[in-house]
Amino acid sequence: MPNCLNSHYTDFLRACATAIGQQYVLTDDFNLKIACVDWRKRYQGTALAVIRPANSDDVANIVRLCVQYGIAIVTQGGNTGLCGGATPLPIESDEYKPQIIISLQRLNRVLGVDIDNATVTVEAGCTLQEVQQAVAEVGLWFPLSLASEGTCTIGGNLSTNAGGTAVLRYGNTRDLCLGLEVVTPKGDVWCDLRGLRKNNTGYDLKHLFIGAEGTLGIITAATFKLFPIPRGQLTVLVGVSTITQAIQLLRYLQAHMGADLSGFEIMSVACMNLVAQYCSPGPSPFGDMPWPEITVLVQLDSGIEFPQLLDRMAEVLDAAQIENLTLQSIVLAHSAAQGQQFWAWREHIPLAQAAEGKNVKHDIALPISAIPDFLLSCNQRLTDEFPGIRLITFGHLGDGNLHYNVAPPLGISTALFLEQCEEEINTIVYEEVLLRNGSVSAEHGIGQLKREWLQSMKGATGLNMMRIIKQVLDPQHLFNPGKMI
Amino acid sequence: MPNCLNSHYTDFLRACATAIGQQYVLTDDFNLKIACVDWRKRYQGTALAVIRPANSDDVANIVRLCVQYGIAIVTQGGNTGLCGGATPLPIESDEYKPQIIISLQRLNRVLGVDIDNATVTVEAGCTLQEVQQAVAEVGLWFPLSLASEGTCTIGGNLSTNAGGTAVLRYGNTRDLCLGLEVVTPKGDVWCDLRGLRKNNTGYDLKHLFIGAEGTLGIITAATFKLFPIPRGQLTVLVGVSTITQAIQLLRYLQAHMGADLSGFEIMSVACMNLVAQYCSPGPSPFGDMPWPEITVLVQLDSGIEFPQLLDRMAEVLDAAQIENLTLQSIVLAHSAAQGQQFWAWREHIPLAQAAEGKNVKHDIALPISAIPDFLLSCNQRLTDEFPGIRLITFGHLGDGNLHYNVAPPLGISTALFLEQCEEEINTIVYEEVLLRNGSVSAEHGIGQLKREWLQSMKGATGLNMMRIIKQVLDPQHLFNPGKMI
Repeated sequence: MPNCLNSHYTDFLRACATAIGQQYVLTDDFNLKIACVDWRKRYQGTALAVIRPANSDDVANIVRLCVQYGIAIVTQGGNTGLCGGATPLPIESDEYKPQIIISLQRLNRVLGVDIDNATVTVEAGCTLQEVQQAVAEVGLWFPLSLASEGTCTIGGNLSTNAGGTAVLRYGNTRDLCLGLEVVTPKGDVWCDLRGLRKNNTGYDLKHLFIGAEGTLGIITAATFKLFPIPRGQLTVLVGVSTITQAIQLLRYLQAHMGADLSGFEIMSVACMNLVAQYCSPGPSPFGDMPWPEITVLVQLDSGIEFPQLLDRMAEVLDAAQIENLTLQSIVLAHSAAQGQQFWAWREHIPLAQAAEGKNVKHDIALPISAIPDFLLSCNQRLTDEFPGIRLITFGHLGDGNLHYNVAPPLGISTALFLEQCEEEINTIVYEEVLLRNGSVSAEHGIGQLKREWLQSMKGATGLNMMRIIKQVLDPQHLFNPGKMI
Repeated sequence: MPNCLNSHYTDFLRACATAIGQQYVLTDDFNLKIACVDWRKRYQGTALAVIRPANSDDVANIVRLCVQYGIAIVTQGGNTGLCGGATPLPIESDEYKPQIIISLQRLNRVLGVDIDNATVTVEAGCTLQEVQQAVAEVGLWFPLSLASEGTCTIGGNLSTNAGGTAVLRYGNTRDLCLGLEVVTPKGDVWCDLRGLRKNNTGYDLKHLFIGAEGTLGIITAATFKLFPIPRGQLTVLVGVSTITQAIQLLRYLQAHMGADLSGFEIMSVACMNLVAQYCSPGPSPFGDMPWPEITVLVQLDSGIEFPQLLDRMAEVLDAAQIENLTLQSIVLAHSAAQGQQFWAWREHIPLAQAAEGKNVKHDIALPISAIPDFLLSCNQRLTDEFPGIRLITFGHLGDGNLHYNVAPPLGISTALFLEQCEEEINTIVYEEVLLRNGSVSAEHGIGQLKREWLQSMKGATGLNMMRIIKQVLDPQHLFNPGKMI
């Protein structure tokens, strides 16, 4: 690096230190190494520093310095993203620019809970769990829930529009958000933290920043709507033979349990065998019976107390048999602890997969009506092309969101499998998804992982609109270069 | 008009006729007069023609001609908007440009209902009622509902992000929409009619067009999520003395009835007296008792059948008395017909107001927690300033949305009152709203009526972002000039 450039960066970092304090401008190898690699250790990049502002004014000051010095910005929360969206680019990348990581972990204050309005306002660096706990303390409920909730931050949830296990009833992160505070690429603080459920005054700008993966600015705080803590909760496992039967059950339960139905997950027998083998959370809820072809996990969140909810659900499931729904086996959790055990089988699937070794993962969405045909066709194409592969299919059927993972045949090295088959498997899966108007990314985003598929999703016109919006809001292209767009 | 200009417009209209058929380019006085005035007859403008395309390709052709000839476009559906957003500007306006009205009423096809996916795809010119009916025919339910549903079109609902009476449970039009087809200001058709509940692939562009009041393009079709038809529905009237008691009841019912609670409306005693006087829909549901200070109308949509729902609600309301909620009087509708009678009292308020004469209307939103203080302060300021005025307050308390209307003192001419007091009343009301982080337009939009208040809502930074997005998507400013932005 020529000396003049070197002094340019030194000047920049010194200005950052002056703005927010030397101890918050980290340039040591240890901190850089941790922040420059993604959660799945698939992406690795380079950054000049990890910068830790304390509040939105600090963030704005740093952004203005980046604009002045032409330094790119990767915003990071809990660094739990699954598509490399929060990892800086490596120097070798064509799109590489000198860049810093802005870590929002010090923006971790709960700014206020408004009980009568049922809203909470938090800074972006709060973990999801901190938000859940803060509102639970005053008797309210924030329904967003996902595996990484102890580590992921609410800013990251917003920037990737995280989904999780209760979308069926409460929607994605986007649907829960009422207001945002954003530092724009110019370094202005746009504060719109209104806790309003109706507000039709001009373009709804918050939706541009939600799900934008840090390419249009930095979300520094948000206001969310809250709900009453459910008075009764119930978890049920139902065994069915086909995906069509699972969809019939979904529609039946939506009609009879109304919006109490908050989760509707499916897990194939292959998933359950894998969990049993690698990290069984206990005895099978189905006892001595084999796991059904498809296990449906049903979650109910109700205003009714548990005993009445249990009675009602038992009645409704009895009546289902009369209405010609084919349900092989039903197990109702008779306590919260038993419900958690049922969920443990669902939640251990990714752990069991990881214990076995890497596989080719897909986070896809489809119209629910298209899922049976998708599985028929895609399973067939993959098993024809790659005999012996194992399909590990589970996910949020109620939202049309499948985690459709492909594991190598037993005895084949995962490294070899990934190297030789991943690209072709992805192509087959995404072709089958796109053929049915599905999505190549349901809840994880685009990041670095799925950029090549963006045009297939947006079309030339949509992609062009994205580009001109990006260009006009971030004309220097300093915000998260090489990600998404 | 100089001849060369005249022939420019003639050429343009001839090109339109060639593109979509002479009979769909209306230039007669009768059609122009109807289309150039708004629903409330508050705004009147001028247009070269009313153009009636048959489909999105027609729309794109007309848009390209408008770009070529520099003609502005006002898009119109049912022409039921309440802020003048679908009315062309008058020639006297500083922002006037030669303009056409594109009426979407021929784009009225239901393109398909996907039962297993619980979605419907419709063209923008379908009336809301046509959409409701089409999905009801296949046993599903579209919950958007508002007074003008027989006339308003779904494209207008989207462009104004219409609210209505079931937002508490199902959200605004925005929340129900999964995909859009839009003709962009360049005349491209951007089709993204995916029926997906999760799709995190790039900027969520649909949210830019929803609520944009036709200033960024023309919505030509949309995909919506649907719900099961409620198996049991129940309407209840509850009398309370104060707004704080009404809010306590809201929180109590949300906790105990869960998401079955789909509507929570309030009506002041002044509203009910007005309805009784001008257009009583029948005997008072409270019998010989006087109307309470505030009547709460509660709507429940449930997966439980009506008799069980009635029992459950009666129990929950009984328990409310034990929990120290002060409820003066309770009437449960024992049939659907009786429920409709209760709703009729609510729905007749605007009619009764119209029968009495004009008044100063406000469609405002507030954090629910701020409503008691807002009413205390704003009522006081208004009655101090304008002794004898009558406050007609009703609305969707569950969403924090009040229709806060101010009628002249008895015996004062409405024309005089509006002329002399409207501006000052608006200023007081909106000041009190903004002081509490509320919104000057909850569900009606900005249009021509509330443009001067946009900056107070968006701030300089937000307004600037709106402007640069508008500029880059519609560089000639041909889409709905003089509205919203």
